[in-house]
Amino acid sequence: MSTLHHYPLCPQSRFVRLALAELGLAAELVEERPWERRAEFLALDPTGQTPILVEGALVVPGPATIAEWLDETSGAGAGERRLMPEDPAARVEVRRLMSWFLGKFYDEVTSYLVNEKIYKRFVPPASGGGPPDMASIRAARANVRYHLRYVGFLAARRNFLAGDRLTYADLAAAAHISCVDYLGDAPWAEDEHAKTWYARVKSRPSMRALLADRVPGMAPADSYADLDF
Amino acid sequence: MSTLHHYPLCPQSRFVRLALAELGLAAELVEERPWERRAEFLALDPTGQTPILVEGALVVPGPATIAEWLDETSGAGAGERRLMPEDPAARVEVRRLMSWFLGKFYDEVTSYLVNEKIYKRFVPPASGGGPPDMASIRAARANVRYHLRYVGFLAARRNFLAGDRLTYADLAAAAHISCVDYLGDAPWAEDEHAKTWYARVKSRPSMRALLADRVPGMAPADSYADLDF
Repeated sequence: MSTLHHYPLCPQSRFVRLALAELGLAAELVEERPWERRAEFLALDPTGQTPILVEGALVVPGPATIAEWLDETSGAGAGERRLMPEDPAARVEVRRLMSWFLGKFYDEVTSYLVNEKIYKRFVPPASGGGPPDMASIRAARANVRYHLRYVGFLAARRNFLAGDRLTYADLAAAAHISCVDYLGDAPWAEDEHAKTWYARVKSRPSMRALLADRVPGMAPADSYADLDF
Repeated sequence: MSTLHHYPLCPQSRFVRLALAELGLAAELVEERPWERRAEFLALDPTGQTPILVEGALVVPGPATIAEWLDETSGAGAGERRLMPEDPAARVEVRRLMSWFLGKFYDEVTSYLVNEKIYKRFVPPASGGGPPDMASIRAARANVRYHLRYVGFLAARRNFLAGDRLTYADLAAAAHISCVDYLGDAPWAEDEHAKTWYARVKSRPSMRALLADRVPGMAPADSYADLDF
């Protein structure tokens, strides 16, 4: 069985957990606290970032590389559950949106929120830990509004974000938004289409394990695990 | 014919120009100044970032998505010039390193240098233009040292960065390092293996057009176009 090194509130790890669950693949979950920079973890991959999937001797690091690996090794056998289309032009749209959420959304929203609100609570002050930087949190809260409107823009025109079927694009968006929601920073009044799309993804069985995650000493927002938020 | 919207000193655009040249694919180059945020350019892709490849009605944005698209549509016919291996595990290594250079190297080195030294010269002061921020440049100059050592570490053990053959990993690294070199910030004394690897890539015909690029009013460093730097 493969092993996923992850952190429960790391949005990139959540993306891979959703992908594994949607594809019906089992993996042993090992919780990694990336801020501890554990030598054995750094030896797996020098970025020192979650998630990392280990399959036997093969180390597959990073959310997009893991997604491509899973599609290349399990996609064809997944039938209707496959998370990438077969048509190259349709794959462009899935990759464009994967990159949007795993890259741009992370840089502009989730990296700020997760670093400031969660990771900095566990990091010693000498290494950059301490109280959250409110300017970063305010920036993330401003940025998440236009991102939710973009999700709504897509969801108003399509059944799922990249087209007719559930793909990696939806899982990337849902993984990141779920972290924002846990932290109480998802402005659900911003866009009705975005909210309706998220309610649909949130009710999928693949989301259950994520909705049960808890950070010690930090309860999720009321909307977090509520399917009728 | 396809069209590549690029900026000459944008490292992500250079990566795609190298890939097109190595694959023997022609594309019309259209210079885009991303800091102008031209409406027609933003309409192609909402990130507003170069590079964007346009093939007929299809818009393929972003360096990694373009690389995957080119491999899916032209890789099989490229024979020995193909830039991705066929084996899924070997593809993991290429994608890991593509992501390292297009992501981590960009965030830690090239985005600072290109923004501070080039883009800010053309942006009006009210929009964030002006003299370079020396703290950002110092950070980039410190970071590029360990990145070059990592290139050297790989090049000492392998023929090319991801294995025996030239792949997207080499092109991503060379594209980014070429921008650093243009700006005179490549510490070539840092690692002999990195330098030898770069000299080999630099002498490839695909590099010629890049080595002829000039930013108006900003001459490249002496080492830039010298094959025996």
